[in-house]
Amino acid sequence: MTDDDIQTEERPETDESSYLLEKKTVAAILYAVDIGDAAQLTALMEPLHAADIADLLEQINTYDRRRLIALYGHEFDGDILSELDESIREEVIGLLTPAVLADAVRELDSDDVVDLLEDLDEPQQEAILGALEEPDRVAVAQALSYPDYSAGRLMQREVVAAPEHWTVGDAIDYLRSHDGLPDQFYHVVLVDPRMHPVGNVTLGKIMRSRRDVKLGDITEEIFKVIPVDQYEGDVAYAFNQYHLISAPVVDENGRLVGQITIDDAMAVLDEEHEEDILRLAGVSDESSLSDTIIEAAKGRATWLFVNLLTAILASFVIENFADAIDQLVALAVLMPIVASMGGNAGTQTMTVAVRSLATRDLTAQNALRVVWREVAVGAINGALFGLIMAGVTAVWFGVPMLAAVIGLAMLFTQVAAALGGIVIPMALDRAKIDPALASGPFVTTVTDVVGFFAFLGLATVVLL
Amino acid sequence: MTDDDIQTEERPETDESSYLLEKKTVAAILYAVDIGDAAQLTALMEPLHAADIADLLEQINTYDRRRLIALYGHEFDGDILSELDESIREEVIGLLTPAVLADAVRELDSDDVVDLLEDLDEPQQEAILGALEEPDRVAVAQALSYPDYSAGRLMQREVVAAPEHWTVGDAIDYLRSHDGLPDQFYHVVLVDPRMHPVGNVTLGKIMRSRRDVKLGDITEEIFKVIPVDQYEGDVAYAFNQYHLISAPVVDENGRLVGQITIDDAMAVLDEEHEEDILRLAGVSDESSLSDTIIEAAKGRATWLFVNLLTAILASFVIENFADAIDQLVALAVLMPIVASMGGNAGTQTMTVAVRSLATRDLTAQNALRVVWREVAVGAINGALFGLIMAGVTAVWFGVPMLAAVIGLAMLFTQVAAALGGIVIPMALDRAKIDPALASGPFVTTVTDVVGFFAFLGLATVVLL
Repeated sequence: MTDDDIQTEERPETDESSYLLEKKTVAAILYAVDIGDAAQLTALMEPLHAADIADLLEQINTYDRRRLIALYGHEFDGDILSELDESIREEVIGLLTPAVLADAVRELDSDDVVDLLEDLDEPQQEAILGALEEPDRVAVAQALSYPDYSAGRLMQREVVAAPEHWTVGDAIDYLRSHDGLPDQFYHVVLVDPRMHPVGNVTLGKIMRSRRDVKLGDITEEIFKVIPVDQYEGDVAYAFNQYHLISAPVVDENGRLVGQITIDDAMAVLDEEHEEDILRLAGVSDESSLSDTIIEAAKGRATWLFVNLLTAILASFVIENFADAIDQLVALAVLMPIVASMGGNAGTQTMTVAVRSLATRDLTAQNALRVVWREVAVGAINGALFGLIMAGVTAVWFGVPMLAAVIGLAMLFTQVAAALGGIVIPMALDRAKIDPALASGPFVTTVTDVVGFFAFLGLATVVLL
Repeated sequence: MTDDDIQTEERPETDESSYLLEKKTVAAILYAVDIGDAAQLTALMEPLHAADIADLLEQINTYDRRRLIALYGHEFDGDILSELDESIREEVIGLLTPAVLADAVRELDSDDVVDLLEDLDEPQQEAILGALEEPDRVAVAQALSYPDYSAGRLMQREVVAAPEHWTVGDAIDYLRSHDGLPDQFYHVVLVDPRMHPVGNVTLGKIMRSRRDVKLGDITEEIFKVIPVDQYEGDVAYAFNQYHLISAPVVDENGRLVGQITIDDAMAVLDEEHEEDILRLAGVSDESSLSDTIIEAAKGRATWLFVNLLTAILASFVIENFADAIDQLVALAVLMPIVASMGGNAGTQTMTVAVRSLATRDLTAQNALRVVWREVAVGAINGALFGLIMAGVTAVWFGVPMLAAVIGLAMLFTQVAAALGGIVIPMALDRAKIDPALASGPFVTTVTDVVGFFAFLGLATVVLL
């Protein structure tokens, strides 16, 4: 075990109860549903945050979900819909009456409505758009005109802007007299006469400064402007890299059209990670625990099918050496070890590569050095485990040449695994294909084919 | 390929250049280093953000790094140290002269100094503590007295608090007359006479409200108080779940001691993800691209060693069926397919389980249903791929009973993989062991052993 295990012990224990729904609360809610007690149900749900209610709905089964919503449905909070996992959002929306749905949606900010609409079918989209008042409908339709996963979809249109020549006093008077300010805002965006953003001033700075100070003199040091068509993953990266709290969004002419705040960027970062981790394991990144059995099975079958082809390819390699195995059955006993160790080393390197590409630590700048490092690491661990396995084989089978063969084959396979594990994700990334999604099958093919070929081929040459 | 691929195509293209250091800039900087032109170097570095300079230092090699710092070192920004990856932070600190280091550290907020100190050796810690002025040194020492990875390490002590009975006018007068306000703050925390936080008021709300409005009447709906010893991962979860922007931190008596802001929570969320993704692949979660070859090799060897034991165990199973393989070499050709498909299905289920445990979607509430679902998914895909493989085998080897054996063995292995993939992470989690770190070896053992045993055992019984 590594040093990390020790660190794990030292960490404060995760207090799971701190934010989890209490089991007791869930049981009481389900009991209220069972006996059909709407008043009791409402009383129990009342103190829960929308995000927790959404979690509750995700965790109970379809039958309970249907009954709960029927009993509670006349006062369904729009925020619950926003927080719901996409996999059951459609189901839940289908269970609400049009009147309840309209009420729920009307409370939401326009960016939340956009988020809600994106994943729905046409008829449900129309139902929700129809429930909105005219200005909101226009705002939502406008947002939907931006590409999927773009800053335009993520931003809120409400933003507090001020001319760059204003003083602190001007800003305070404006803010204190103006009615239509957004619910949450942290910065005033300074704009030039063409509505191009030129700086951000925090409310805290405005509060602390004398009335005659120019806003232009107290802007934040860090100021990043987000193009409206920028990919949301890049937006999240910028927030995380530069510790932004909010950033103005501009159209293709550089004019201010909205802003993005860090809480939305954090949600995107979380989704991107989820996508990477699931894709690396060959699970559809749309999958969730509330998927049905059939959906879940389909979400995994693609990768299993690709893996089946890879495995059959590797078996063809083995078949070519059937005579060798016939003569020395120890080869069949040992060959999975070579392939398995190669597969694991390949996955290690590939994961580091995919992660480094995602965090932009792996760039054209250091690519060659990183490839060289990975190959060297593969050679070191290949030599180490090749030696260990040669020792094990010598003791186990008592055939020194077989020991030499497996040791060499392992070294060779580990180096190939390292090379495949780093070069394949980099090549896919350059070809604009998500390396998290597509690297696995290629790397596995390399490690399996090289592993079996190296071991069985060497054995044929040396031993038979 | 799945629907996801199509979605990938539709996404706005990642504009890598938008936040990446321009290759030209890096080349110009390295040229300035080469010719020893300090003025030119300073001019080139001047417009760069500390996070970008840190990335630059991580991406160039040790030799260039040393020369760059020697040339630039007399004006080294403390923020660069904060942004540097831990793996080279120690090296860079070692390159700075004591005077430059002292200057750099003195500019930092106390929470950033704490973050810096955590990963340093004793002598470097002392050097930095010695450079601080007395009040800062006390603040940092206090923070270091909280457990590693706790809210206390993460928080900043600077927080703007107001008595709960104050009005908007009181708050504005206080904020506008008070000198020691933190650089960045977004909320005023309301406290009762015992300094227990009772609510958050955003600066925006204060700006918009009449002077006679009571602060207690315009608090945020969502208000979460963070215990000072809470695990930082739980803090990040709370920020993400409840869309918090900042939250007060309290000591064991419930008294306000500091606050955590969302940008720090976002950084923790990012680290937690990095940890999960690397641990799942069996890579030390301390690893980074700037590790030396030896460090990187060590960071992967633990897992490879565990995997070697697993693979040898699986080989013992094969050895028991050496006679069967001797009689029918097709068994050796086909057996890796059964094990490989089991391993992949196990990894899929395990990844979903680890991720669901991390996001708290998998709870005692829905555990039984999720286990059942995973087993059903395993049975469906096992039946599907068992049938496909039976067909392939029938055509390939022309032995119908061998086709039946591999089909059944695959069904059996896929179900076992699903069961292992879901139950093992849940059991580890209940035993307070990180499932991302420890599930892999157990799941691989299950799928390898069951895969070889089911296939070779069935073959022995049915065919020989």
